[in-house]
Amino acid sequence: MTHSNKNTAILLISCPDQKGIITNVTNFIFKNQGNIIELEQHVDKLSGKFFMRVEWELNGFLIDKEKIKSEFYKEMGLPFHMEWDINFSNYIPKMALFVSKHAHCFLDLLARYQANEWPIHIPIVISNHQEWQTIVENLNIPFYYLPISKENKAEQEAIQLQLMEQYKIDFIVLARYMQILGSNFIHKFPNKIINIHHSFLPAFPGAKPYHSAFERGVKIIGATSHYVTDELDTGPIIEQDIIHVSHNDSIEDLIRKGKDVEKIVLSKAIWKHLNRKILVHNNRTIVFT
Amino acid sequence: MTHSNKNTAILLISCPDQKGIITNVTNFIFKNQGNIIELEQHVDKLSGKFFMRVEWELNGFLIDKEKIKSEFYKEMGLPFHMEWDINFSNYIPKMALFVSKHAHCFLDLLARYQANEWPIHIPIVISNHQEWQTIVENLNIPFYYLPISKENKAEQEAIQLQLMEQYKIDFIVLARYMQILGSNFIHKFPNKIINIHHSFLPAFPGAKPYHSAFERGVKIIGATSHYVTDELDTGPIIEQDIIHVSHNDSIEDLIRKGKDVEKIVLSKAIWKHLNRKILVHNNRTIVFT
Amino acid sequence: MTHSNKNTAILLISCPDQKGIITNVTNFIFKNQGNIIELEQHVDKLSGKFFMRVEWELNGFLIDKEKIKSEFYKEMGLPFHMEWDINFSNYIPKMALFVSKHAHCFLDLLARYQANEWPIHIPIVISNHQEWQTIVENLNIPFYYLPISKENKAEQEAIQLQLMEQYKIDFIVLARYMQILGSNFIHKFPNKIINIHHSFLPAFPGAKPYHSAFERGVKIIGATSHYVTDELDTGPIIEQDIIHVSHNDSIEDLIRKGKDVEKIVLSKAIWKHLNRKILVHNNRTIVFT
Amino acid sequence: MTHSNKNTAILLISCPDQKGIITNVTNFIFKNQGNIIELEQHVDKLSGKFFMRVEWELNGFLIDKEKIKSEFYKEMGLPFHMEWDINFSNYIPKMALFVSKHAHCFLDLLARYQANEWPIHIPIVISNHQEWQTIVENLNIPFYYLPISKENKAEQEAIQLQLMEQYKIDFIVLARYMQILGSNFIHKFPNKIINIHHSFLPAFPGAKPYHSAFERGVKIIGATSHYVTDELDTGPIIEQDIIHVSHNDSIEDLIRKGKDVEKIVLSKAIWKHLNRKILVHNNRTIVFT
Repeated sequence: MTHSNKNTAILLISCPDQKGIITNVTNFIFKNQGNIIELEQHVDKLSGKFFMRVEWELNGFLIDKEKIKSEFYKEMGLPFHMEWDINFSNYIPKMALFVSKHAHCFLDLLARYQANEWPIHIPIVISNHQEWQTIVENLNIPFYYLPISKENKAEQEAIQLQLMEQYKIDFIVLARYMQILGSNFIHKFPNKIINIHHSFLPAFPGAKPYHSAFERGVKIIGATSHYVTDELDTGPIIEQDIIHVSHNDSIEDLIRKGKDVEKIVLSKAIWKHLNRKILVHNNRTIVFT
Repeated sequence: MTHSNKNTAILLISCPDQKGIITNVTNFIFKNQGNIIELEQHVDKLSGKFFMRVEWELNGFLIDKEKIKSEFYKEMGLPFHMEWDINFSNYIPKMALFVSKHAHCFLDLLARYQANEWPIHIPIVISNHQEWQTIVENLNIPFYYLPISKENKAEQEAIQLQLMEQYKIDFIVLARYMQILGSNFIHKFPNKIINIHHSFLPAFPGAKPYHSAFERGVKIIGATSHYVTDELDTGPIIEQDIIHVSHNDSIEDLIRKGKDVEKIVLSKAIWKHLNRKILVHNNRTIVFT
Repeated sequence: MTHSNKNTAILLISCPDQKGIITNVTNFIFKNQGNIIELEQHVDKLSGKFFMRVEWELNGFLIDKEKIKSEFYKEMGLPFHMEWDINFSNYIPKMALFVSKHAHCFLDLLARYQANEWPIHIPIVISNHQEWQTIVENLNIPFYYLPISKENKAEQEAIQLQLMEQYKIDFIVLARYMQILGSNFIHKFPNKIINIHHSFLPAFPGAKPYHSAFERGVKIIGATSHYVTDELDTGPIIEQDIIHVSHNDSIEDLIRKGKDVEKIVLSKAIWKHLNRKILVHNNRTIVFT
Repeated sequence: MTHSNKNTAILLISCPDQKGIITNVTNFIFKNQGNIIELEQHVDKLSGKFFMRVEWELNGFLIDKEKIKSEFYKEMGLPFHMEWDINFSNYIPKMALFVSKHAHCFLDLLARYQANEWPIHIPIVISNHQEWQTIVENLNIPFYYLPISKENKAEQEAIQLQLMEQYKIDFIVLARYMQILGSNFIHKFPNKIINIHHSFLPAFPGAKPYHSAFERGVKIIGATSHYVTDELDTGPIIEQDIIHVSHNDSIEDLIRKGKDVEKIVLSKAIWKHLNRKILVHNNRTIVFT
């Protein structure tokens, strides 16, 4: 659900499953006069873990916004052994965009930005190619051209990391960025780097998935958006979709048709991330509705 | 989520939205040692109504199964002005099937029955045609042939109603039953008669929707499952889906291809109904996941 | 199929169905040394009409490009009473864009333009609002601000028509242009004005379809791209698609989610139009693959 | 397109691409007074091969049905180095069904059979389990119980082969038959054994794909229908589809939901095969519309 001009707190929890969690957490909100507008929970039977997302209105809430976290920690987080996070809906997240030559995902995100579709800031675009510089700068977004070679990779990544800090980046979107990020970079942003891969994973990981799809003669092609982890194309999957293709489609057709799936899948994943709908557990995502 | 051999209680609530409902209801379960395995809620902003479905394990629950309803009424239902219903997962619902000539939905349901796909009883099949009698009787299901004409309609419906009572039917599925039920019958089963209409409503209500779809030159055809109300094809929609078609498809092709959508859409609606996932409000459904 | 750098002729035919058409037309191409790379045909049983699209390579074709039309007319068009059209793949069509406030379709088309996704020219953008002027002019596309009121409508449409002539526009895309074009304008561009309507027609024509969809409680929302005719939202449908929604989606959610369907459906329709894949007959389209 | 009571010939061709094939083949039909009702062609650019399907009405065709093949061979097949096949629409193909325990695909096919959805004979059902015997025999179809063990496998397959001959089987459907057929059997029915695999291949081949899908945390599950070849789950793909799933779906849910995709995908593949719409080239299918 979207709510324009919402003033809410969003709590994400994961902890060992046990009786009374929902009651206790909702009571924490209730007794402080909070009105819950959305609650979703999930139990992972196999691992016995409990997950929840609760969103409540801050208007009239008895605890000051600045103190909510410390109060929650004391009353709930600590006694229930929770991993938890509280965010506020009126905070506008800062998203960094990384792009290479293929710009369809990237331009789709910029279009949403221009049309004010999402509550988001894009403080910076980084590319290993120069061709999108003018477009980006026309939108008054700083553009950093950081070409990558075997030799300069470590160095450039250090610069990228420094830029992430400088611009206080909350999360990163690889909008068809055709470089593999180093471990060091990835570990600085756990579950905060969103990638789009142009196949329905786990089929066709790595380079040139459309060529492999054509070769295999599949009747569907797809796209997968996932959080980036150390191992290529195996991170937690956030969103996937496919379209139907036929013998009539050349590799060029697959590439052309695939672009639309890629951009829609990526944008859906970002939307979920933006709205704090995602939890990660055992390399799998819980994506609330 | 399916759980084989579950022993749970399922509570469905609707009431005016107010702070503390979730806390109070979950606390009722918690303090009686119930373990919640699923909770979903929804707030209708426009009408200010709150809806919830909670399912909890009965093993170890302190209130006797027979007394749960009366206890809940006293503690929750009454003070919170709730409409509510409690059902138990180990009860096997009794579904009556009505069918005419087109048997694809009907045979699909029988196939699921034979393969034990669903926890369900089919105590009776009613048809205004005789051709499916043998198939039904081979499955040891009583088959009632009740042909309908203008003249005998009221009379036959009285018999149908009497059969519903005799077989203690919980809900009715019109599996392409090409007769319009009378008001009297419908009012006896509010939100308990599931129909499948062979178009994406509200487009093409009434007779021969595939002919109308062909005529209009649409590029999709669909099916809609809904609860039956007095007005034809306008009841609360439970499930819809479509498939793509082209100029290449004749009316016969639309009819043939549509059958698969119809049967899948109908079966999804029944599954949701079976699992007590549906609430109805202002002619719209809340269908929990 | 896409072919980069193709040099082909594309023939579109419609005529009364009769034996020998395919043989005669393909023989015309064969005896002049043309190599057919794609042939699709369709027979409308009800009206007894035959439709065909043939594409062949011009390299080595014995008839000069300039004379193909006159030769075809003499040998085929006239004796077989054909309506026909021949186009050449290396001609880049000129598309005019009309847009109002909602820019998602419009920006999506501009993004494709910037990324060189399609072989197309956009010589002009017309809007009744000023807000997209800078974006358009940054792409070096002339932008015409033509606000429409009851009083100036005829006058402004005369200007629009004059601009279409001046820029030698081949076809027009209404990318969520919220004005109804006059008959005079429409008749100048038969089957050459592509509109996107934000519902699965024939359901929810006219204004505010997402509001109506919400009100009705449908479980799918969709979009329809069609050629514009005199009667609102009833022209020949080119492309349709839908997405699933739930009780959880507010009207704002429907509008937000619908945007992605709208833009993909519109772009698919334009792609088919661009590639001369569409014939219109009795207010229905034949859209070759 | 379906045509009830059609009396047509269906020609399938593959040969090296060369100018004039369409003209020559259609002229063969035209000069013998045949009326073409459907023609589709495809060129595989990479291998330079040409494929075509032509269907024409036999009423009034000058060549006797019995002589069409020999005449075609002489005039077309031989000079153009074609692989080709001619079939007649009024021939009802004989389909053998193999099934194990999971019966959803199998029962779906039987339901279509009972409802006369397809022009098909099912002369025999073979199973390595006994539980579907009564259902099959109620439909007056001979049922052969042939349990398979490591020891008796060769022997039982010899019996199966002999039964295929005895019942003059045209093609075989493995409706979730959980045994791997031997090479000898497979080579007797090239591109005539249709299997349904319960994943979107090439992801999750082999056993327990739903378990692997759950483990990987994918957001879609699917099914693939393909012709059986020597190597497991790598034959030419005919049809694929998927449905969306979520963290909320247990392995049991995936299995339950997957059943519907499996049966629809399998039935679509069979329909295409029945209507002689499929050609195989380099382990990929050409599936005409």
